[in-house]
Amino acid sequence: MCQVTSEFDRAIALTALDDRPGRTRFSAALSDQWSIGSAVNGGLLLALVGNAASTLTGPAGHRHPLAVSAHYLSASTGGAATVEVETVRTGRRTSTVAVGLSQAGDDADQPRVRALVTTGDLVGYDGVTFTAPECPRLPPPEECFSWADSPAGVEKPGPFLDRVDVRLAPDSVGWALGQFDGAGAMTAWFRFPDGRQPDPISLLQVVDALPPVTLTYGHLGWVPTLELTAYVRAVPAPGWLVVRHATRAYVGGLLEEDAEVWDSTGRLVTQSRQLASAPRLPAMA
Amino acid sequence: MCQVTSEFDRAIALTALDDRPGRTRFSAALSDQWSIGSAVNGGLLLALVGNAASTLTGPAGHRHPLAVSAHYLSASTGGAATVEVETVRTGRRTSTVAVGLSQAGDDADQPRVRALVTTGDLVGYDGVTFTAPECPRLPPPEECFSWADSPAGVEKPGPFLDRVDVRLAPDSVGWALGQFDGAGAMTAWFRFPDGRQPDPISLLQVVDALPPVTLTYGHLGWVPTLELTAYVRAVPAPGWLVVRHATRAYVGGLLEEDAEVWDSTGRLVTQSRQLASAPRLPAMA
Repeated sequence: MCQVTSEFDRAIALTALDDRPGRTRFSAALSDQWSIGSAVNGGLLLALVGNAASTLTGPAGHRHPLAVSAHYLSASTGGAATVEVETVRTGRRTSTVAVGLSQAGDDADQPRVRALVTTGDLVGYDGVTFTAPECPRLPPPEECFSWADSPAGVEKPGPFLDRVDVRLAPDSVGWALGQFDGAGAMTAWFRFPDGRQPDPISLLQVVDALPPVTLTYGHLGWVPTLELTAYVRAVPAPGWLVVRHATRAYVGGLLEEDAEVWDSTGRLVTQSRQLASAPRLPAMA
Repeated sequence: MCQVTSEFDRAIALTALDDRPGRTRFSAALSDQWSIGSAVNGGLLLALVGNAASTLTGPAGHRHPLAVSAHYLSASTGGAATVEVETVRTGRRTSTVAVGLSQAGDDADQPRVRALVTTGDLVGYDGVTFTAPECPRLPPPEECFSWADSPAGVEKPGPFLDRVDVRLAPDSVGWALGQFDGAGAMTAWFRFPDGRQPDPISLLQVVDALPPVTLTYGHLGWVPTLELTAYVRAVPAPGWLVVRHATRAYVGGLLEEDAEVWDSTGRLVTQSRQLASAPRLPAMA
């Protein structure tokens, strides 16, 4: 039998190093193929954190990340990383673990991400919908725009853009043509290009895969995440996902940016919010 | 000179127990005067966590909580608590600490809250507003409704309701009269009854001070927080605050609930989001 592994699953693979009571250490290999600029994409790190958490709490019946809160301390780079998971509490319906991702530095380990993860079984939370945001209606993926449609001469910010198949809606690409409408929002289709289907872990990647909404203001440049919290709300159906990013508050050098993800049946499957540093702007008149 | 301390400041007071490199332990006395039911209010615990973090990182110039992510593990009760703070990283603009709040149990310490806190100086983040939600217009506080206006016979859920002066807008109190409009939202004025003015730490209390929006669906009962992340966006001006709570997604036994807080000048000062367990409902036809 031939085992097919997606590039996403390879990128979040973990090897257990040791296992003391309540504390497990894994090694991971961060691939620079998931980088934008010189930093590994924050969504991939979030998925790696969620994978480590679920691995530990799955045997207690808590296989899905319900809430993942990550603080990003320094930019992760391609290469070896250590993921340390501490079990904080194992309850009846949920477990909570603390996760630290670090990389060897010149003299000491460099903390990259610290996270708290509460896990459970999403199937046990299935039920009535009292309210949920409606899935935006987008033209079909083939009428939306991918990285490959960029105007000639635009430099690719990193190989990460080949790891994800993101198709921005026509009303979300004006910035790429120099039309800065200040909408502070974007919608897109998302899938993995190699056919890897969505699951609760991969949704953690999806919430940080679109270009930053600061681009709609004409603010170019890096938008490093300080904190990102994601709630996985349901097990996604196979197929394309729809993602909406929007900021409610972009003030004074800090930007809050929310993501909502719906599956191919139109069901809300993830909500996330991040606080990020806004790009440095050239002095404005 | 006479030192006046507000009841909020007394409730979040900390005493340093010991101070090892990178790790400080504090004791705190959780007052059951801040309880709803038998549990100490989650907002007070968040403020206590923020206070511990700021105490440690203030000397590095990072006196304000910018992002606080807390996972609530078990209900805190009136009595002694230990708050342990680990310094994860001290950077140029921000510091990040991990905080654990626990209480002595029958045989072992019971973890109550685990949190990650990134601190900085909000004044350094002052600047242009590109977008921010507008402060809702409410009738003046004297035309809004406090706990004391409840219909006769309604039992007070706990002494916490006397610690905060919350005045719900007329369009946010239908549920108290049996009119369940399913709005999933509430707006209110907030202040401390003893005149204690708002600051970045007290805003962490404010985001979890209103009744849960599940009441607008006629769903009574406890709504325990699993996770709550708050972003403090500005130092608030003195005076009344305006708070808006709303859910975007209340599905299958889990509820996301957002809070936004504006100061008396109409400036957005805090955003928060929590994931909570919905009240258990009687079987529905």
